[in-house]
Amino acid sequence: MAASGNEPRLPRVVIVGAGFGGLEAAKALSRAPFQVTVIDRRNYHLFQPLLYQVATAALSPADIAAPIRSILRKARNCKVLLASVTGVDLENRSVVTDRGEVAYEYLILATGARHAYFGHDEWEPFAPGLKKIEDATEVRRRILISFERAETESDPAERSRLLTFIIVGGGPTGVEMAGAIAELAKYALASDFRNIDPRDARIVLVEAGPRLLPTFDPKLSEYARNALHALGVQVILGEPVTEASATGVRLDGKIIESRTVIWAAGVRASPAGKWLDVETDQVGRVRVGPDLSVPGHPDVFVLGDAALAIHEDGRPLPGVATVAQQQGKYIVKLLMRRARGKEAGPFRYRDPGSMATIGRSRAVAEIGRLKFTGFPAWVLWSLVHIYGLIGFRNRAGVALSWFWSYLTFERGMRLITGPTPGLPETQSPLKGADRRILDAA
Amino acid sequence: MAASGNEPRLPRVVIVGAGFGGLEAAKALSRAPFQVTVIDRRNYHLFQPLLYQVATAALSPADIAAPIRSILRKARNCKVLLASVTGVDLENRSVVTDRGEVAYEYLILATGARHAYFGHDEWEPFAPGLKKIEDATEVRRRILISFERAETESDPAERSRLLTFIIVGGGPTGVEMAGAIAELAKYALASDFRNIDPRDARIVLVEAGPRLLPTFDPKLSEYARNALHALGVQVILGEPVTEASATGVRLDGKIIESRTVIWAAGVRASPAGKWLDVETDQVGRVRVGPDLSVPGHPDVFVLGDAALAIHEDGRPLPGVATVAQQQGKYIVKLLMRRARGKEAGPFRYRDPGSMATIGRSRAVAEIGRLKFTGFPAWVLWSLVHIYGLIGFRNRAGVALSWFWSYLTFERGMRLITGPTPGLPETQSPLKGADRRILDAA
Repeated sequence: MAASGNEPRLPRVVIVGAGFGGLEAAKALSRAPFQVTVIDRRNYHLFQPLLYQVATAALSPADIAAPIRSILRKARNCKVLLASVTGVDLENRSVVTDRGEVAYEYLILATGARHAYFGHDEWEPFAPGLKKIEDATEVRRRILISFERAETESDPAERSRLLTFIIVGGGPTGVEMAGAIAELAKYALASDFRNIDPRDARIVLVEAGPRLLPTFDPKLSEYARNALHALGVQVILGEPVTEASATGVRLDGKIIESRTVIWAAGVRASPAGKWLDVETDQVGRVRVGPDLSVPGHPDVFVLGDAALAIHEDGRPLPGVATVAQQQGKYIVKLLMRRARGKEAGPFRYRDPGSMATIGRSRAVAEIGRLKFTGFPAWVLWSLVHIYGLIGFRNRAGVALSWFWSYLTFERGMRLITGPTPGLPETQSPLKGADRRILDAA
Repeated sequence: MAASGNEPRLPRVVIVGAGFGGLEAAKALSRAPFQVTVIDRRNYHLFQPLLYQVATAALSPADIAAPIRSILRKARNCKVLLASVTGVDLENRSVVTDRGEVAYEYLILATGARHAYFGHDEWEPFAPGLKKIEDATEVRRRILISFERAETESDPAERSRLLTFIIVGGGPTGVEMAGAIAELAKYALASDFRNIDPRDARIVLVEAGPRLLPTFDPKLSEYARNALHALGVQVILGEPVTEASATGVRLDGKIIESRTVIWAAGVRASPAGKWLDVETDQVGRVRVGPDLSVPGHPDVFVLGDAALAIHEDGRPLPGVATVAQQQGKYIVKLLMRRARGKEAGPFRYRDPGSMATIGRSRAVAEIGRLKFTGFPAWVLWSLVHIYGLIGFRNRAGVALSWFWSYLTFERGMRLITGPTPGLPETQSPLKGADRRILDAA
């Protein structure tokens, strides 16, 4: 496995983050004359676009995650390091981690983004976001616990708070989340309770802007709104959330009471900018040049959600998987050209289209000038997402789960896991509701 | 859904615990003239015999769990209550929970058992057991993190501790765990690391008694030992563990250093005895009469691992699923006979046989006088366990995962999840190993 002593040492590339962009770069490098180290805090690559399905009990965490080591098993020039990066030493060309320092000749930062609260981090305990597996199982826990608590709640006001679910943010994640919760309540849970009817659950989607799915064609936004209405989801547009608390959210002058608020409204780039001590935009993205390198550091690249890269038309590139993947491939091509003494042209994004699903048989898709809605878009969405998963087992498992759910309307992953089975502190019901006699009939 | 006011109220049966015994009782009661409330701290029934496969990354938690509500969906006379029981008020016939009190005419306590440390609860942080889903994901985390840490560990002594896995207890769980870890190291992880060879991992199974699988025929114990040897597992018999710590276990005079110790040695019954304030044996089991009722309380029954029930031959019944299931059915039959003014004979256990698997194509099975080993026993074991799972989705999912693992030797569920990706406090590597320069080559 070790290189023989006579060979010249190959240049070292360090990739931080094994998301869509980092992994694509690592795969491309596996066929190139470099020594590669992939550093990630997690031992798995996560297929984030389906995380909302874990949060709504349709899939298991392992269905949408694959160990980084097994993905890169055959890339013999790639090492994987499970470690937390704490900084970058630009002068000595080394990445500082909690497991030691790792030297590089080329550095690719593909560290992604976290959800963010527009400066109101104090809202996070009341309105968890959806970026990690633990986020998804926590949201799943809150949704399921709310129905359980409503079942034994005698105070009608509290029962109604427990059966109200607010999703903040009308982008793809918010739309998909709202549709999935509505289907969970309408179908999967419909006959499982004796005192409440889960179909009475109120699902509210709040978007600050004038329409849902703002990056899509307005016709598709309208379709999404109608499809959500058909599922019983209340859509509120043009009203930013001004406060989130344990009992709900405040909009401009209006309060919606709820025990379960889910945040899908904003993201903030990972601390790559802080590590590099360079200029970032207001959401923490590092401004990169046309070749994705950091100004003044031609051997340091930032890609994906961590980077502010500018499209040919002058607009920033969107924070989607395909941008990160194409950037990962581009950087490797650039490194290989440089190794031959050549330069590369600027990065160009080829938009393969975008899509979002609203629920069973309902979706929107936009590919170039083509626009699809309804069943065809939903089939396309399903195929693209199954194809995007890594590994046959994940594909087969997800296909099986979806097929099963489609036939039976069931959700198989309704597990409330975690340290205590009760409500989290921020979500506890009113004290007076406890210690009463339950009607066992 | 509510009963009309003119009907006489049906007698109320409260079942605490939706394990094998409690669920079997609830299902049998669904066809009987009773009002039933099933109370559990968890919202799912767990198929505990396959928990070790979650701990070794072969299955996902949701594969072996099913929501209690959906299992009992069609049992319209059954309510499910997610609550923690804190006591039983025998005088007022009511179960006290953190969600209120639930009145009963008949009470069935099916609360199972936890793992136990023979009076050494201080060992638990160093040697977690395997009874809950959270136990299994924690054990999985520890096993996978140990390989990750070994990959970057430069101190040979610490690397050897990280690559040593000790399983305490030679019953079915211990044997299955040891075989599964050996296969994980030998096959699934074999090519995934660059600095260590996972096949060098040392797996040690320690049993205090003179042979493995003490409840099986001695020939099968011998087969299990040989099969484990063939997988590279070191089996130590006749040596009780006298201490467990962050660096390993102490046997009589001997120390085995290890960062990962797994406890499969002892169980302790749940606090049912304390709630009832009645006599228990040394592992906390409630002594019940021949009809499984608590002496002096003919309407209170205890079954399964929580009960000390005596076999016709004078020996206590074993703590296995089939005993609990038959007891659950028996109690319902007894209640129905009583309702018709008749008495029931004593509970009789019909032993359907027992089996344990050692790994791929290796198992032991004992059915009456018939004894099987090897591939036939393994196929039988697989079929019985798939059949025992609740719900088509779980069966299909587990069958798919097993088939996939059988073909590819892969383990798909290798996720390290939890609050921090590092080692738990009790398992942290020596401090001096940190902050060094890692060799990125």
